[in-house]
Amino acid sequence: IFVISDSCHPQTIGVIRTRAEGFGIEVVVGKMHSFNWKEVQGQVCGILLQYPTTQGIIEDYENIITEAHHSGAKVIMSCDLLALTMLKPPGEMHADFAVGSSQRFGVPMGYGGPHAAFFATKDEYKRLMPGRIIGVSKDSQGKLAFRMAMQTREQHIRRDKATSNICTAQALLANMSAMYGIYHGPDGLKKIASRIHDIARVFQKAVQDLGYETSSPESFFDTVRVSCRSKEELQSVLKRLEESKINVRVLDEKSICLSFDETHTKTELDLLIRSFAGRDKGSDLQKIVESLPVPSAIQVRTSNFMTHPVFHSYRSEHELLRYMHRLQSKDVSLVHSMIPLGSCTMKLNATSEMIPISWPEFALPHPFAPKEQMKGYWEMFEELSESLVKITKLNKVSLQPNSGAQGEYTGLMVIREYHKSRKEGHRNVCIIPVSAHGTNPASAAMCGMRIVVVGCDEHGNINVKELEEKAEHYKDQLAALMVTYPSTHGVFEDGILDVVEIIHSRGGQVYMDGANMNAQVGICSPGDIGADVCHLNLHKTFCIPHGGGGPGMGPIAVASHLAPFLPSHPVIPPLHVDPKHCLGAVAAAPYGSSSILPISYMYIKMMGDEGLTRATKVAILNANYMAQRLSASYPILYRGKHGRVAHEFIIDLRPLKATSGVTEADVAKRLQDYGFHSPTMSFPVAGTLMVEPTESESKAELDRLCDALLMIREEIRDIENGKMDKEDNPLKNAPHTADVVSSDNWNRSYSRQLAAYPAEWTRTFKLWPSVSRIDDAYGDKNLVCTCPPLESYVEAEQRVA
Amino acid sequence: IFVISDSCHPQTIGVIRTRAEGFGIEVVVGKMHSFNWKEVQGQVCGILLQYPTTQGIIEDYENIITEAHHSGAKVIMSCDLLALTMLKPPGEMHADFAVGSSQRFGVPMGYGGPHAAFFATKDEYKRLMPGRIIGVSKDSQGKLAFRMAMQTREQHIRRDKATSNICTAQALLANMSAMYGIYHGPDGLKKIASRIHDIARVFQKAVQDLGYETSSPESFFDTVRVSCRSKEELQSVLKRLEESKINVRVLDEKSICLSFDETHTKTELDLLIRSFAGRDKGSDLQKIVESLPVPSAIQVRTSNFMTHPVFHSYRSEHELLRYMHRLQSKDVSLVHSMIPLGSCTMKLNATSEMIPISWPEFALPHPFAPKEQMKGYWEMFEELSESLVKITKLNKVSLQPNSGAQGEYTGLMVIREYHKSRKEGHRNVCIIPVSAHGTNPASAAMCGMRIVVVGCDEHGNINVKELEEKAEHYKDQLAALMVTYPSTHGVFEDGILDVVEIIHSRGGQVYMDGANMNAQVGICSPGDIGADVCHLNLHKTFCIPHGGGGPGMGPIAVASHLAPFLPSHPVIPPLHVDPKHCLGAVAAAPYGSSSILPISYMYIKMMGDEGLTRATKVAILNANYMAQRLSASYPILYRGKHGRVAHEFIIDLRPLKATSGVTEADVAKRLQDYGFHSPTMSFPVAGTLMVEPTESESKAELDRLCDALLMIREEIRDIENGKMDKEDNPLKNAPHTADVVSSDNWNRSYSRQLAAYPAEWTRTFKLWPSVSRIDDAYGDKNLVCTCPPLESYVEAEQRVA
Repeated sequence: IFVISDSCHPQTIGVIRTRAEGFGIEVVVGKMHSFNWKEVQGQVCGILLQYPTTQGIIEDYENIITEAHHSGAKVIMSCDLLALTMLKPPGEMHADFAVGSSQRFGVPMGYGGPHAAFFATKDEYKRLMPGRIIGVSKDSQGKLAFRMAMQTREQHIRRDKATSNICTAQALLANMSAMYGIYHGPDGLKKIASRIHDIARVFQKAVQDLGYETSSPESFFDTVRVSCRSKEELQSVLKRLEESKINVRVLDEKSICLSFDETHTKTELDLLIRSFAGRDKGSDLQKIVESLPVPSAIQVRTSNFMTHPVFHSYRSEHELLRYMHRLQSKDVSLVHSMIPLGSCTMKLNATSEMIPISWPEFALPHPFAPKEQMKGYWEMFEELSESLVKITKLNKVSLQPNSGAQGEYTGLMVIREYHKSRKEGHRNVCIIPVSAHGTNPASAAMCGMRIVVVGCDEHGNINVKELEEKAEHYKDQLAALMVTYPSTHGVFEDGILDVVEIIHSRGGQVYMDGANMNAQVGICSPGDIGADVCHLNLHKTFCIPHGGGGPGMGPIAVASHLAPFLPSHPVIPPLHVDPKHCLGAVAAAPYGSSSILPISYMYIKMMGDEGLTRATKVAILNANYMAQRLSASYPILYRGKHGRVAHEFIIDLRPLKATSGVTEADVAKRLQDYGFHSPTMSFPVAGTLMVEPTESESKAELDRLCDALLMIREEIRDIENGKMDKEDNPLKNAPHTADVVSSDNWNRSYSRQLAAYPAEWTRTFKLWPSVSRIDDAYGDKNLVCTCPPLESYVEAEQRVA
Repeated sequence: IFVISDSCHPQTIGVIRTRAEGFGIEVVVGKMHSFNWKEVQGQVCGILLQYPTTQGIIEDYENIITEAHHSGAKVIMSCDLLALTMLKPPGEMHADFAVGSSQRFGVPMGYGGPHAAFFATKDEYKRLMPGRIIGVSKDSQGKLAFRMAMQTREQHIRRDKATSNICTAQALLANMSAMYGIYHGPDGLKKIASRIHDIARVFQKAVQDLGYETSSPESFFDTVRVSCRSKEELQSVLKRLEESKINVRVLDEKSICLSFDETHTKTELDLLIRSFAGRDKGSDLQKIVESLPVPSAIQVRTSNFMTHPVFHSYRSEHELLRYMHRLQSKDVSLVHSMIPLGSCTMKLNATSEMIPISWPEFALPHPFAPKEQMKGYWEMFEELSESLVKITKLNKVSLQPNSGAQGEYTGLMVIREYHKSRKEGHRNVCIIPVSAHGTNPASAAMCGMRIVVVGCDEHGNINVKELEEKAEHYKDQLAALMVTYPSTHGVFEDGILDVVEIIHSRGGQVYMDGANMNAQVGICSPGDIGADVCHLNLHKTFCIPHGGGGPGMGPIAVASHLAPFLPSHPVIPPLHVDPKHCLGAVAAAPYGSSSILPISYMYIKMMGDEGLTRATKVAILNANYMAQRLSASYPILYRGKHGRVAHEFIIDLRPLKATSGVTEADVAKRLQDYGFHSPTMSFPVAGTLMVEPTESESKAELDRLCDALLMIREEIRDIENGKMDKEDNPLKNAPHTADVVSSDNWNRSYSRQLAAYPAEWTRTFKLWPSVSRIDDAYGDKNLVCTCPPLESYVEAEQRVA
């Protein structure tokens, strides 16, 4: 049993209910202050408290937490980060986990997202944390280096035991919030928080003076509940609020809730109060301010926070700008070169597609703003959905899932609901090929499915015979097959129609992973193949930028028999959803990260049908061109019957390792010296690189990467020939920083110039790597976030300052 | 006599009339095809033709050009660049000069500007070209390097003979247009041009079919003149056009003119034609398209253009993006470090100030759009003018001048009109201190004034005794004094009130150069000092970015007795202008570069009075802090009575040159190795550096620059001591490129590390210079634009590609 306080947001309760189902956890929503722990003694695994509550109240949770711990339950507190700058923090109340959104730290509402969440826990649980953890390592010169730890473990080793699929990366948004924190620092945040609290207090006093009942004397932060004496009174207040263009949350027939933020002005507050007063003359706000007791009665935070020097060093726009510039200068991005990450579809994010997301009409709306105020958004939802239906040749689309992995999860949950609706709820076997993305088994596991793995034949295709045997074996429990098309090996598998038929004929549903849609749009479709569900990575195929790891969007499209089961939402039901059958909410906002949808919408509209089809053809052509140019020097691992690849291909480096000792990591790192981001490494096959050029790259750029790889092949040949040392060579020592090549002591067996400028184009523009080869072994020993001692930051800051 | 064809734009005629006055050139506007050359034989210096004409006609000018040359006149053709992609170019018609706007190449109208102009001439006149010319040189490693030629000659040596004040730099806009050309290339431009021409032809045919008379059978490019049969018919057409929200140019009671561009759609064209038809059903455009003769009758260009490889290499968004990224990566800007250019006021250009200029409401309006459609703009003009009046304590403002130099010119012309109105038109002596900006004498010369120079005393102040003598000597001819306050030496001169009194008492007017307003705003003002006119560099004091050399804005403020003489405009008269007395137009748009005014407007509104005053104080404090820290190591050249400087100060390097041989250029170049842009070099005093930190920089950044300068002082000391060689040292060899410090052959007497990483902060972020020390002597020998042979570009391109 997992217990949710009834003072949590309805959308939070909705998402947990859906999620808990797959894990078979019973969810109880209750009043925590009067919760009967005896009745469920020992059965409650955890509880969720909201702080402040959905109605804005700051409750004292310490007794509840003690009781929960006493009963063996863990305590999660869902918090408002800005409120925490003033309030006693969850850690000091002995909560086990603190979670919430960091949207409030400088990220627009965006009609629901994207925003970054946060998740914090006690030291004892840190190794159980989901997601990707950044750890500290050092490079070959002993320089501090940050590195993603546990990534391989999650996606490549743990697979169905991975927890990373619970979350999706929101790196861009997390960085935005971080910059907000860096600019304002703890003092600035406290100032903002207390301004908000003061506005709320002034409002409360003013409406109390007008005779309304409010949340007082309970303490609150930014949200005030106001109760009217009658239904009629509330109706007339609402009417006046509407005339003043102010949206509020209606709680019941007599009560409403209002929240404030730091952008609210005296004029707005005055207008608001006049709507309650029902007359033109407002209250004398100055007088109210003077009459307020100081300080207010909320539980005051006494402990420090954000003590790291970074939160104290960049307090002017110029300083912050330069800090951000220094950070970005360490990254290779699409402004420097193509990023040939296989399966990632790093294509052009056109400026014209990006501009609208900063328009206030898209950026600012609250996710629960009345639908009639959001006509533009809903028109876009409808048109975008229609386009995706047309592209997939399926029947209906849900735009709710916030990422590809969430799309997978949602798709499988829809299949689950479908089986349940046919009284076949016992079907729970999910067949997944061994070549699948790591997210596939993880998603299936989250839906409570049992994973059955199917191998590949020597051409990298699904072993159809094995598939048929397993499908037959599990035919009564078969829920679904998850399949990627073209395959993760970059090949249009010939047997795909047989594969689908094998599953369908045994009562299973076919889930198509949309990772490789860039090879399908306009020339074939999940519908053509016979898939029942697929997700679409809008951040791959449909031009939303990857943001350095999020935001993404993973809408799903389903065939008509699955349409009734698409996810709903407890506050704003999405288009075409049938509330009778449907799945609950899979995300807190009805349309997920709505505010980035204009990117995909613009892309699809600007390209048109013809343009989209042409893009797919060019993407496939580009991959085949590169594979062809490289094939004399590197074996291409898998190809289709006609010797062609799809939109990506795999370079097999294993034979070279045998002859030269050079690994895929050496080649990847050496590419940095040539100014390129590495292709995908060791996925889906260890010891290989997978290249996806996309349609956005010119022939000149494809040739430049081919040239770099061919030059590297010659460097490897020199090692094979013994012309270059097996260890002391530019590959094993790559990448080469400016520090290293301008060092006063150079004792390598090759020249500085070869190290730094292996290709002529590096003289026109050189992106210097900021660290040399990172010590992976050291990093793996420091698996979870091991911050360096504070002193070393101070030093670094002093150097900058 | 200068003859302007009456088929030029009215604003062009207006600006030339004003400009010609100062030079004493008589202007005649006439019909060129029937011009009586005999009557003025030998007296015409030049003629101006517009191509196509203001009514859109493509005239055959070859006979006129021959006649003009025969009479000893030069021929200027004002051209539309896009039209020239289709038309016979001016050079092939033997015109001497071609000028025009490059706005059409991808720059928004911006309600008048900013846009970059172009100026082209025959090889024989290239040494007479005004402005700053970029020439080709090479660096100490023999690498190609671009360099501004003739700059010193113009501003520091030629002074009143300089021609650079005729123009103002519009580097940012020129780059925008260049990128438009690079992206589209000649083929793309021709395609755009012919699309536009086709739209115009379809329109012409459609209205002819409706019975209107048009410019046909004369040939045209994008502009069609339509004549109605009666006044009443025109009125009803205009009414329908207004209902359709289409603006047109009214030529007379019966005729209008319409222009097309590449953004116009079939829907818009249809709407337009329906307005002429006066009924709902439009013409069948498809049918018209099919009926058009192919090709159209315009004079077709047969010669190639834009043959340089740069116009053929970047045809995808990714390629262009990366090219732009490589270019910008060579520049040091405010994102890297403070730019302490004395007299340039390189302060923060806040993002919030910059955002509005990209809003379509500011970016898109045509400069002659009806005033009633532009209420927001006019409200901003009014409020901004009021703010500037308040700041200057003067009486009225003109926002027309497009740059500081144009402001100077306008201010002096206003003074000239004032004297003329009092029947003192003979007053033409302008006194200018020797320390003045080079633009001052150049501007005075352009107004036909006689320049009298006054020297400085040993403290750098104006020699008041000399001033009084000269003022007395010229008291009957005295027109004006031009004075900068605080002085260009960075000092609030004590004698300023006496100086003003000396001029006023002899009938002269005082022009205050606003270059140093950043030291005045909120604490003193031109009005306080008694100045009669001043200009304001909005791109310095009021936060418009410098754009790498433009756009700028140089509004002028005047005392009430000068207000009647502020510039007007032939099409849209500015606010509060009295058409009876006023000066003509000084710029083609009534409000100059209107679309960048929101930057200054936002800055002033967001800062408020208190913020502006505080900024001035902090700017002065910052300068004094730095001067104090540096004074033990470098002599500070001038200070006020209390030992303080104003908002900038001069470091005297001449003593160090004597002891070490190190020059100001060596220090400036060495600062690049430390990651800084150099301060202003050798202005206003040769052999010095002038530093202006501005209020935007944090103490940490001020200290970092001080540290760099102090470290450089120690390097100089090592040369003085003989620890370092007089020639082979990091100062003489600065700046050090990555190429140089990672070279396989290093034979310098100092270490690579000292060369590349002289300060710890360069290890956190290093901006590598793209070339080593440039060969100035070589560059000066190639004074005007000497392009390298095409082959070397091809090579460079190949290297990139």
